[in-house]
Amino acid sequence: MGNSIGKIFRLTTFGESHGEALGGVIDGMPAGVKIDLDAVQRELDRRRPGQSSIVTGRNESDRVRILSGLFENITTGTPIGFIIENENQRSGDYGNMRETFRPSHADYTYTEKYGIRDYRGGGRSSARETAARVVAGALARQVLAAEGIKIYAYTSQVGDIELDRDYRKYDPSGIERNAVRCPDADVARRMIELIEQVKSEGDTIGGVVTGVVTGVPAGLGEPVFDKLHAALGSAMLGINAAKGFEYGLGFDFARCRGSEAIDYFKTDGSGRITTATNNSGGIQGGISNGEDIYFRVAFKPVATLLRDVETVNAAGEPVVLNAKGRHDPCVLPRAVPIVEAMTAIVLLDFLLQNRCSRI
Amino acid sequence: MGNSIGKIFRLTTFGESHGEALGGVIDGMPAGVKIDLDAVQRELDRRRPGQSSIVTGRNESDRVRILSGLFENITTGTPIGFIIENENQRSGDYGNMRETFRPSHADYTYTEKYGIRDYRGGGRSSARETAARVVAGALARQVLAAEGIKIYAYTSQVGDIELDRDYRKYDPSGIERNAVRCPDADVARRMIELIEQVKSEGDTIGGVVTGVVTGVPAGLGEPVFDKLHAALGSAMLGINAAKGFEYGLGFDFARCRGSEAIDYFKTDGSGRITTATNNSGGIQGGISNGEDIYFRVAFKPVATLLRDVETVNAAGEPVVLNAKGRHDPCVLPRAVPIVEAMTAIVLLDFLLQNRCSRI
Amino acid sequence: MGNSIGKIFRLTTFGESHGEALGGVIDGMPAGVKIDLDAVQRELDRRRPGQSSIVTGRNESDRVRILSGLFENITTGTPIGFIIENENQRSGDYGNMRETFRPSHADYTYTEKYGIRDYRGGGRSSARETAARVVAGALARQVLAAEGIKIYAYTSQVGDIELDRDYRKYDPSGIERNAVRCPDADVARRMIELIEQVKSEGDTIGGVVTGVVTGVPAGLGEPVFDKLHAALGSAMLGINAAKGFEYGLGFDFARCRGSEAIDYFKTDGSGRITTATNNSGGIQGGISNGEDIYFRVAFKPVATLLRDVETVNAAGEPVVLNAKGRHDPCVLPRAVPIVEAMTAIVLLDFLLQNRCSRI
Amino acid sequence: MGNSIGKIFRLTTFGESHGEALGGVIDGMPAGVKIDLDAVQRELDRRRPGQSSIVTGRNESDRVRILSGLFENITTGTPIGFIIENENQRSGDYGNMRETFRPSHADYTYTEKYGIRDYRGGGRSSARETAARVVAGALARQVLAAEGIKIYAYTSQVGDIELDRDYRKYDPSGIERNAVRCPDADVARRMIELIEQVKSEGDTIGGVVTGVVTGVPAGLGEPVFDKLHAALGSAMLGINAAKGFEYGLGFDFARCRGSEAIDYFKTDGSGRITTATNNSGGIQGGISNGEDIYFRVAFKPVATLLRDVETVNAAGEPVVLNAKGRHDPCVLPRAVPIVEAMTAIVLLDFLLQNRCSRI
Repeated sequence: MGNSIGKIFRLTTFGESHGEALGGVIDGMPAGVKIDLDAVQRELDRRRPGQSSIVTGRNESDRVRILSGLFENITTGTPIGFIIENENQRSGDYGNMRETFRPSHADYTYTEKYGIRDYRGGGRSSARETAARVVAGALARQVLAAEGIKIYAYTSQVGDIELDRDYRKYDPSGIERNAVRCPDADVARRMIELIEQVKSEGDTIGGVVTGVVTGVPAGLGEPVFDKLHAALGSAMLGINAAKGFEYGLGFDFARCRGSEAIDYFKTDGSGRITTATNNSGGIQGGISNGEDIYFRVAFKPVATLLRDVETVNAAGEPVVLNAKGRHDPCVLPRAVPIVEAMTAIVLLDFLLQNRCSRI
Repeated sequence: MGNSIGKIFRLTTFGESHGEALGGVIDGMPAGVKIDLDAVQRELDRRRPGQSSIVTGRNESDRVRILSGLFENITTGTPIGFIIENENQRSGDYGNMRETFRPSHADYTYTEKYGIRDYRGGGRSSARETAARVVAGALARQVLAAEGIKIYAYTSQVGDIELDRDYRKYDPSGIERNAVRCPDADVARRMIELIEQVKSEGDTIGGVVTGVVTGVPAGLGEPVFDKLHAALGSAMLGINAAKGFEYGLGFDFARCRGSEAIDYFKTDGSGRITTATNNSGGIQGGISNGEDIYFRVAFKPVATLLRDVETVNAAGEPVVLNAKGRHDPCVLPRAVPIVEAMTAIVLLDFLLQNRCSRI
Repeated sequence: MGNSIGKIFRLTTFGESHGEALGGVIDGMPAGVKIDLDAVQRELDRRRPGQSSIVTGRNESDRVRILSGLFENITTGTPIGFIIENENQRSGDYGNMRETFRPSHADYTYTEKYGIRDYRGGGRSSARETAARVVAGALARQVLAAEGIKIYAYTSQVGDIELDRDYRKYDPSGIERNAVRCPDADVARRMIELIEQVKSEGDTIGGVVTGVVTGVPAGLGEPVFDKLHAALGSAMLGINAAKGFEYGLGFDFARCRGSEAIDYFKTDGSGRITTATNNSGGIQGGISNGEDIYFRVAFKPVATLLRDVETVNAAGEPVVLNAKGRHDPCVLPRAVPIVEAMTAIVLLDFLLQNRCSRI
Repeated sequence: MGNSIGKIFRLTTFGESHGEALGGVIDGMPAGVKIDLDAVQRELDRRRPGQSSIVTGRNESDRVRILSGLFENITTGTPIGFIIENENQRSGDYGNMRETFRPSHADYTYTEKYGIRDYRGGGRSSARETAARVVAGALARQVLAAEGIKIYAYTSQVGDIELDRDYRKYDPSGIERNAVRCPDADVARRMIELIEQVKSEGDTIGGVVTGVVTGVPAGLGEPVFDKLHAALGSAMLGINAAKGFEYGLGFDFARCRGSEAIDYFKTDGSGRITTATNNSGGIQGGISNGEDIYFRVAFKPVATLLRDVETVNAAGEPVVLNAKGRHDPCVLPRAVPIVEAMTAIVLLDFLLQNRCSRI
């Protein structure tokens, strides 16, 4: 269980890291949407390994094949099935992985839960599964874009190097100009240097991704348990290695007094009600208020170090692991398109749900 | 939509702040559980207004009436319906609330979403709704306790006054000994002083609640979208005024290197596999690993100030509000039992889901 | 589990026959609907015991109390909680019911499933639960009526006395003119005579209810698993004592050749596409086609006879039961408003779902 | 929406008749089940076109490819994704199908609902989609078989030729011995003759499939809306061309008196409580009682005649269709494995749900 997300626009994914293929089914895509399939592949390419020196050097082409739900490139309202073939999935030498639990990985918990696990490359717990989410997100954002809703994310912190919290200070057009996906070129350069240094030491490092959504109409979100920020939080925390989520001022609110935190209303030139500040992050009572939505997602450092690591095997005996293969020293750059994809999936679902709010 | 939580143990709530009654239905409570109804009422009393000088002075008796699903105090497997009558709900003078949007409240967003709102005391967006959650949580924790799972939460930060992040430094028996529900008596005293000062200025203040769960078996959580921490995050973010959630080291992971963050495995005296540290917060890959689960929830300051507040009405014209009635200067003390309740609801649901993991 | 129906317009019910109260929560009622509460009570009165000599003489007033979700009689988009108090629920003398399984009742299966049952008056398995469905159906049909969708049902068979299968031969205005709810006065009289005779023998009898919906727009239904007729079938089969469901020609299709069964298209005077016949019952491929929907629901005879009945107790020992109290000799008359209610619940849910079919 | 079935064991299907491939994802398959993949393919072969002279002569090899969820042929608890490639899907000449609505097909309703349809071979509304259900059912029945639950179905009526209603009179080992899947060889021969005659006239014919389940433990089913028979009914009515469902005595109950319909309890030699008769069809109050479950499903005649058929196009103008290609003159033989598959899917889901009924 647990492999589906969404109520109306609903994605179900399948696939293990080294199985035959991964993929998914999207149910609830509205009919009549003209799809740009190249744009879908471009999003997958952003998530793909091997893009630069600071991500894993694995070479996976990750071509999506859409099997249903489109007719002459237009959605028909029927489910969109898609797969991404895994290449070379049988070639691995997994040594003693069957019996060994990598620390801070899901090897132990999957084995405890299911009594069995596909130990090849992390199996289902591998971040490779997120490729299916990126496909669904890329489709969802095409619908959202037509409604004027734009989504972007960027790396806002790597280790101790961080951007200012105010997303409005940064031009999103800078995000794709560097390997770390940070919109400030100078900070990006320092982040990349830090990642390369960490990598050279066989170590890894954590960070933060900031997500921003503009053009969201007021009214999205379903209180009380499906508040918009609760659904966004759940979606972000469901990304591999995510450990925290906050929106608006987030944890900084804890230090605030009400008098300094309140977003006072005002009326703009056209008579539209808006807020003077946006500490709330575009959501009140779980429902979007028409202001920008922004949030931050904390990621832990990758648990696979490129050095000897002491751990135990299934019998509880000490063993030493040395990760073969190529792993990311920092997930942040590749997490950016995944954060965007999950945001799109959540927002489209709520956009559709909101069609049923009134008679 | 959005008024249900859980897949197997599933709570649906209803009720507005000043409607006739609020309540809920629990579907999926297993049969055969002997229920201590006094313990349920005690949890409600912990959430109740009017307990001390630092929470709202409103006087609501909040007696729960269970209408079904129990027979001779034992659960029968049929749904548990319950209500809490609202007292004096017709007495209010709501002045111009019908036309006025309180800043940083849900007045505007509900109106935008539904085209109508019950403006009496916040209607459905009022935290009064959480009383129903506390009832369900109190029932769930009785099942969990029988399985050895214990849940507690406490106020760990008010404004700039904060406890150490390590929950193991504090004895949970101290939590109920003071009005702010902080386990350290000295820090509690300072927190209370701060809240009283803020209150005297007609202002409010934010903070953080820490939640802890002990005795959780390995195996709870349903990857990839219903990871245990994602469900906990969603449940916590669904509490009124919550703005952030992190588990384990949370946002502090962003500054860490993998080599310092990894939880190495070891074998305890009895041969059981455990971890030397617990930076991960008891969850790996979305599944509990048998270690303690701990997390933090950030709350914003209450948006209702006891002073004149400038805002707009539905026509976009400026108006001045002065909140009548009695409001909490700080939600933290009353948020503690709600955090515990939501934790219990989530954990029982996953405990039941996990029964289906293996043949 | 299993106490909810619907995806967007979603009813959850609770309550045992002789518990304190029964009721429900409706989530997903659109905001902005003006509700006629008297009409809701009138539907409940149609289902109520004690209306005539051919239904049970029990006296229950069945007053619904709506607790939330309405403000000034208009729906607000928040959940509608409601209860119906059970009167005199503690007065029963249930004799040896705790240990006895009534044949063809749910006593045995509930005990096998849950290990415990509320044996007072059938507990949760009592048809008393359907009162909550009638409330929800009465609310749903007010929304549907505003869209031009009309629902009616009638008793079309009691024992061997049956109406012609063609619903168009009968004027629905005749349904409420007799105690058995059959639109043909002569047939109704014969049905009533049969029921009275059966009753005088301490026996019971089965029958069929026909349901009809007019004014349904084309497009309702969600293939492939939530086809409109599959959802209607599930809803009807979920009514106590229902044993079969068919729509359009139903089981008579088994004898037909394609050439005689096909509904040929034609164009009506206004250029609208319609069908020359409606053997299909208004649904093609699980989606409404704009023609009338009609279906039949088979009900078994009530299992409680007013005579000595041999059965076994929990130890498997033979015992003799003699049903005390007052029971229906035939469920049909009271099933009619329940069939209508379930139809309304299903149709409103699909009407809302269909809002998301296209961009 | 509507492309998923099941709550815990949950199948989502995708794919159009002439798209690239069809397939599905199964979420909730318990871990640890050894799978016989050949048995899965054998079930698919039973559904396949081209098996005999009385079904369509289309030649599709229908090889299933399982992409995930198995490791060394054992289920891992992760979702099982699978596809069946469509062969020659681009070769069709669909003439004026884009603009033409075949009578008693879903062409018109899909177009009305979605504003677009994939008109190649019926698109999503084609019974070809059921291949994915057969895969899921074949997996489910392997789990059920290990629990002693056996499922079979057979053709019990074609046109006016019908078997006795009592399934116990027929040996299921005879079902696969003839092309029509009727366990009585003589009746089967007459059915086949009838189908061949109908086919020679370019016509089609309806019928009934009977389903039987033995070895079901007491306790499966979730009242009140997810009664076991309601879920079975919905699953059967969701099969293409199904128009009616009844279980136990079904519609014959309408003619019965309670005194003749009741299933009296008795105690068998081993002290187990059982029933003297099984008119109820193995389910009481929506919960299995341990007796055999049996039910009947009515199918309409295939709507595609192999002769000229008058219909209309999207503009409402009369046109004449002549179905090219090869179509089934009677769906019954190929419906048998689909009925079995849907039964297995429903039962496994309820078997898992029932694990949560008691503490």
